[in-house]
Amino acid sequence: MDKFMIIGERIHCISPSIRKAIEERNPEPIFKRAKEQLDAGANYLDFNIGPARKDGEEIMQWGVKALQSEFDNVPLALDTTNKKAIEAGLKVYNREKGKPIINSADAGERIGNIDLAAEYDAMSIALCAKEGITKDNDERIAYCTEMLEKGMGLGMEPTDLLFDPLFLVIKGMQDKQKEVLEAIKLISDMGLRTCCGLSNVSNGAPKEIRPIMDATFAAMAIQCGLTSAIMNPCDKRLMETIKTCDVVNGAVLYADSYLEL
Amino acid sequence: MDKFMIIGERIHCISPSIRKAIEERNPEPIFKRAKEQLDAGANYLDFNIGPARKDGEEIMQWGVKALQSEFDNVPLALDTTNKKAIEAGLKVYNREKGKPIINSADAGERIGNIDLAAEYDAMSIALCAKEGITKDNDERIAYCTEMLEKGMGLGMEPTDLLFDPLFLVIKGMQDKQKEVLEAIKLISDMGLRTCCGLSNVSNGAPKEIRPIMDATFAAMAIQCGLTSAIMNPCDKRLMETIKTCDVVNGAVLYADSYLEL
Repeated sequence: MDKFMIIGERIHCISPSIRKAIEERNPEPIFKRAKEQLDAGANYLDFNIGPARKDGEEIMQWGVKALQSEFDNVPLALDTTNKKAIEAGLKVYNREKGKPIINSADAGERIGNIDLAAEYDAMSIALCAKEGITKDNDERIAYCTEMLEKGMGLGMEPTDLLFDPLFLVIKGMQDKQKEVLEAIKLISDMGLRTCCGLSNVSNGAPKEIRPIMDATFAAMAIQCGLTSAIMNPCDKRLMETIKTCDVVNGAVLYADSYLEL
Repeated sequence: MDKFMIIGERIHCISPSIRKAIEERNPEPIFKRAKEQLDAGANYLDFNIGPARKDGEEIMQWGVKALQSEFDNVPLALDTTNKKAIEAGLKVYNREKGKPIINSADAGERIGNIDLAAEYDAMSIALCAKEGITKDNDERIAYCTEMLEKGMGLGMEPTDLLFDPLFLVIKGMQDKQKEVLEAIKLISDMGLRTCCGLSNVSNGAPKEIRPIMDATFAAMAIQCGLTSAIMNPCDKRLMETIKTCDVVNGAVLYADSYLEL
């Protein structure tokens, strides 16, 4: 069994300091967050530039080059709804430490990102959604197989698609949680890899409770087969939990010091 | 879905203060631990008097009566390998707040505790074991069905047996963990209730890591269907995790204050 893959979420233009850094093409605040996340155990870094309608291509190329030259070709998830910006990023991406991840395709308007993944031999997160919130697992699995067939038809390895059933907020959509966990299990049982935006589940909950909710839900989802998450690697409780799941699942050999590795 | 059932493990004769309290028939140290566990959220209290070859019957009756009169007929798990002591305890037990739990029957020498459970309309923990450590899930399920058939043949409700696949220590038996979790799933999928000695998994690990291991494994096991555990309710991280699982599973309605309930 492979180790759980941690995609650090903290280089995100929703953060004022990152937004400013991108606007000014000042890499230092971005490097700071990159280093924190890598030190904490992130395997990939997500670089989220938002819709990036203006200068998206140039911004993505600047960020990819800056991060990869500063951090020994760190593998990245290229995160924007601007497809041209993703493609621009893929063109300058160095794959020495791992394929790029496109964040993200879906079964609707963003289905074209699967073509891009196939063309550039990239991985892609594949949201099991078309428009709005998916109704149930029948729909989730229908979208999943739709994207899987498209990718395989283009010659992709099934494992280069990271299927995301879309985690939902507990506060407000409590009755949907078991079904989302079941979706992870259904997709995993097909031998496919999965991903999620983990912190969705605790959205709107009191700040001190969020790490408890995220960590608990992560353990439950990993038991269902979840293989990766876009998440905050600087959340100590969450990281401890994921490392323990890796030990339970035999992905990492137990040692008394396993939390420090 | 029912709330997870927490059986407090801390009134155990392995503790010197409890051993002394039992020897001297001094209830105060026992009451102290009972109160701590009930305040922390225990639903049942385990009263473990060890093998109790001498005076076992009298000790069990003394403890059951003392605990139930002090704590409003608190429901108890009667824990000893001395079957006569269990029976003596059942005779004085007040079931107003819940049936007594016999801890425990197995498919080997202690199979007679299922007769006792049937005779006294009690619940019983049913260890999926005969002698030594069970080899694999084929054996676990064979023992489970053996005990189930016996209980049902005696007129018991299947849900009055709490099947325990026996949790194993991670440090030393790391490669068995996935199978134990699968056993929980297999037993749960038969519509049966399950139990476990949760802290087994972290036995021998550094003290500061144990709550992390116990909490993580609990969330994974609950996702497999685990319905109860003999555990330390004073372990804050573990209790936070279990309460969160109850929210995810819809057994408890989400409120921002759910951890304080």
